[in-house]
Amino acid sequence: MADTVIGIDIGGTNLRGALVDSEGNILKRMKILSEADQGIDRLIDNLAVFIKDISRGEKVYDIAIGIPGIIDSENGIVTDAPNIINVDNYPLRSVLDEKLGSNINVVIENDANCAALGEWWMGAAKDVDSMIMITMGTGVGGGIIISDKLWTGVGGMAGEIGHITIYPDGAKCNCGNYGCLESYASANAVKRMVHEGLNDENLVTSLRKGLKDAEIEDIPLIVMEAASKGDEFSLSIWHEVGVALGIGIASLINLLNVEMVVIGGGVSNAWDLFIGSLRDEASKRSFHVPMERAKIERGALGDDAGIIGSAYLAHQSSGHSI
Amino acid sequence: MADTVIGIDIGGTNLRGALVDSEGNILKRMKILSEADQGIDRLIDNLAVFIKDISRGEKVYDIAIGIPGIIDSENGIVTDAPNIINVDNYPLRSVLDEKLGSNINVVIENDANCAALGEWWMGAAKDVDSMIMITMGTGVGGGIIISDKLWTGVGGMAGEIGHITIYPDGAKCNCGNYGCLESYASANAVKRMVHEGLNDENLVTSLRKGLKDAEIEDIPLIVMEAASKGDEFSLSIWHEVGVALGIGIASLINLLNVEMVVIGGGVSNAWDLFIGSLRDEASKRSFHVPMERAKIERGALGDDAGIIGSAYLAHQSSGHSI
Repeated sequence: MADTVIGIDIGGTNLRGALVDSEGNILKRMKILSEADQGIDRLIDNLAVFIKDISRGEKVYDIAIGIPGIIDSENGIVTDAPNIINVDNYPLRSVLDEKLGSNINVVIENDANCAALGEWWMGAAKDVDSMIMITMGTGVGGGIIISDKLWTGVGGMAGEIGHITIYPDGAKCNCGNYGCLESYASANAVKRMVHEGLNDENLVTSLRKGLKDAEIEDIPLIVMEAASKGDEFSLSIWHEVGVALGIGIASLINLLNVEMVVIGGGVSNAWDLFIGSLRDEASKRSFHVPMERAKIERGALGDDAGIIGSAYLAHQSSGHSI
Repeated sequence: MADTVIGIDIGGTNLRGALVDSEGNILKRMKILSEADQGIDRLIDNLAVFIKDISRGEKVYDIAIGIPGIIDSENGIVTDAPNIINVDNYPLRSVLDEKLGSNINVVIENDANCAALGEWWMGAAKDVDSMIMITMGTGVGGGIIISDKLWTGVGGMAGEIGHITIYPDGAKCNCGNYGCLESYASANAVKRMVHEGLNDENLVTSLRKGLKDAEIEDIPLIVMEAASKGDEFSLSIWHEVGVALGIGIASLINLLNVEMVVIGGGVSNAWDLFIGSLRDEASKRSFHVPMERAKIERGALGDDAGIIGSAYLAHQSSGHSI
């Protein structure tokens, strides 16, 4: 029974998780509202209820939680997570230890790092020992696996692939820099490009109707559908997303010579609309041999990548070999 | 005696090497002409003579050689080294095995990777377990150490820091891409910027005289001296070198969150002229915490970094712990 762990993925809207066995099988899954916007205390309460509910009838000692933010995994601290819980250096692990009892082992990690581990353990990258994960969501996250190990850096902050500079004089990023990959390949980026385009009154596009009141998370889907129906402006947005990703991935391949680049996250559902320009641009800008060697693939686990990666961490920290 | 190895650094002009003990001390050093421009056979002959001469009176079983090029270290093959020996997939290790006898263990590696190992073992980065080396020479090379190990990638090509894209529409690089770091922070880059500037007949600069017939390797020194004497145009070139390095280093720090970035190679002698704009630009573009954590320093070993790093590899492959 100790071979079953809980992997959790905290998002701005939902708190999702699963019981996962040592072979990566999901035995039971649950989803509740995270209510992170109502403060950290509410989120912690929801987490505790979630953990109690999902483990009912099971003996579970190991839990890992993926969080979108800067995580000091070693000390169990959420350094910064502006898009989800507005806290500074919040000692999440010790708070949960108190709430759950000291016989429960809690691990926390950046959500994109968890997604990388998930795809590497059970998904698209399960046969490789070095890979880069790129998650296209509201922002762009990333995780790096080198020699079968997650590289988290000296401060736990490695893998911020969304914040490599693509265009030094490009669009301003939420991080304060200009021209980050995140400013060209995220839901926020698509939203920006749409709004900039619509400012041109002469632009003819089917997006002009109905998009104005759309939620940020719905915008990529709307632009995807318009592009699929042949809307030139929408197609040009996905082209630009692919070019930016291609420039970044070429640099990553020249730098790290990994076996695989896996792209996941909700915005990657537009795969068919950006993969062409991505591959063209990456091929033009990278060395031939490492580019040929690096497979560029879609994530195979979808939304489960983070949960399964968290579960991997929980298994690993429990001392059981997997 | 088996604790002494030979570390060698092959350059376009010189073949340099040393006897190095297991504590990284140089016991004896030598330099001869590589004559690489006269073909691979001549270079091999010179290497064999060099090895025989430097090990006279010593029992040396382990030799490592740093080469500027794409090296398949595992198989001992020089995949490509256009600036030094014009060969394709040359089996250097087996050729040397035949020449030197099978009781000699030969290791080959990319020269910038050797420099990274040298600075990490005995130089500026000797107290850290993750670092990035940037070598500013005719081109820009690099090496990456993660968790106390050189990361060479799946094909031995990792660390090509000179070929991350800084300006997507920038100057054409020798590799075929546009706007690589190498096109903005190498001797070749300085030469290009000088020539472009001199095309403007109205530009007033002390470089106009005397630079025309200068050898490529002398140009950075001449521009350095002119800048030190206050020549505005020369100062602007080093400013641009620093900005390009700063953009690249910010991306590297956001991506890899390493403890240290070490900059070496002949062109880095202009340190005082580019470090200001480098630090300004890197600070503006990177996350605060990992930027604070990453020391950016000059190499401490100068030209010896490659030799000492090669010696480290030779020691390591000999099976003796160091």
